[in-house]
Amino acid sequence: MVDIKVVKNVLKLNDEVAAINRQALREHRIACIDLMGSPGAGKTALLETTLDRLREDLNVGVITGDIATTRDAERLAHRACDVTQINTGGSCHLDANQVRQGMANLNLDTLDLLIIENVGNLICPIGFDLGQSAKVGMFSVPEGEDKPAKHPRVVLECDLLLLNKIDLMPHIPFDHDVFMRDLHAIRGDARLIELSAVRGGTGFDAWCEWLRGLVAQAKAEGLASAPA
Amino acid sequence: MVDIKVVKNVLKLNDEVAAINRQALREHRIACIDLMGSPGAGKTALLETTLDRLREDLNVGVITGDIATTRDAERLAHRACDVTQINTGGSCHLDANQVRQGMANLNLDTLDLLIIENVGNLICPIGFDLGQSAKVGMFSVPEGEDKPAKHPRVVLECDLLLLNKIDLMPHIPFDHDVFMRDLHAIRGDARLIELSAVRGGTGFDAWCEWLRGLVAQAKAEGLASAPA
Repeated sequence: MVDIKVVKNVLKLNDEVAAINRQALREHRIACIDLMGSPGAGKTALLETTLDRLREDLNVGVITGDIATTRDAERLAHRACDVTQINTGGSCHLDANQVRQGMANLNLDTLDLLIIENVGNLICPIGFDLGQSAKVGMFSVPEGEDKPAKHPRVVLECDLLLLNKIDLMPHIPFDHDVFMRDLHAIRGDARLIELSAVRGGTGFDAWCEWLRGLVAQAKAEGLASAPA
Repeated sequence: MVDIKVVKNVLKLNDEVAAINRQALREHRIACIDLMGSPGAGKTALLETTLDRLREDLNVGVITGDIATTRDAERLAHRACDVTQINTGGSCHLDANQVRQGMANLNLDTLDLLIIENVGNLICPIGFDLGQSAKVGMFSVPEGEDKPAKHPRVVLECDLLLLNKIDLMPHIPFDHDVFMRDLHAIRGDARLIELSAVRGGTGFDAWCEWLRGLVAQAKAEGLASAPA
């Protein structure tokens, strides 16, 4: 029982800081996604192509989490408006306080969209609210068609799911029907975009449109709650 | 400080049960590996091919851990001597007590080798001793060449590393030199076998030879410690 109580307390403290982050983002009218996926699902490659597409008309900041190295931040530094790396020192997920520290390193006045690239892990990050406007869960074709069934919480709690590396479909045994059947058995209204982050950006029109919609919503909500 | 103390206590309790598991395996002269890798790295596919190769002369049991579904156990049921599935109910790794329960479902008298397929996660399982004779860490080509650098603890603590899905090398940007350089920068004597679990079993001679060596060692140690 001690363990359960400790876990509850940790989550409660995390939620309090997540609420602070959410309020700060709302005041700055910034949309924010928490991007989650396995190691090597292609989160950083997705962001590279996404930033190339969006930077003409949106200011995008990135907080990238890793247990070691600053390689993701280095890859993204020339593309994003503002990037900060958080090394969790072995921890398997980002928490709200780490994101709060990351936000303190960014110039929130200039941003339209904040993308949090979580630690490569399809399990632990899902339980931690970071203050985001939307959670995005990423699967990839080489991981196999059984991943929605094995990770139902990702399907249930994410506002959008991505299936990356669809260019590899011809080279890999991947049963697309099983993938879709499991996905919709877990959640009938699951929203999925299939894309390829490295091959010319197949699927990126839909993905960028979804992100622009999130930005528009954050602006509208910010205006609605602004002092008269 | 409370958190750190709790984590230490949890690990201490885990280590005590791991020692019980290790003793039981030693008494039965069973070699045991803890196989760890990301979701979709190919752990179950590896076991399918491995079991096909070994079952003529070795009795192999499998404990397979997952946060949901029994799919891996179903895939392996016809190939292994004995299979038991542990659903962790959301938890991100197997612990020694879950393995102890799994071992209670197996007939240890008949086994030469026990393979524990850990939950798909490249981070959390590495910290938990299960009582295994050896830890095996699996990377795969589609995950990218940066995974050793990002997961140094896997490199440092595993007795053997596998690089799976090498058949996909022509279709994927994967810098093999960087992968090897990082691997050996972290650990000069890192032992690596490159293989393909789905394409005819490239690399499986070396992998099966390594497993047979582990089995021979367990037999020898068991004989040495047997009562006269």
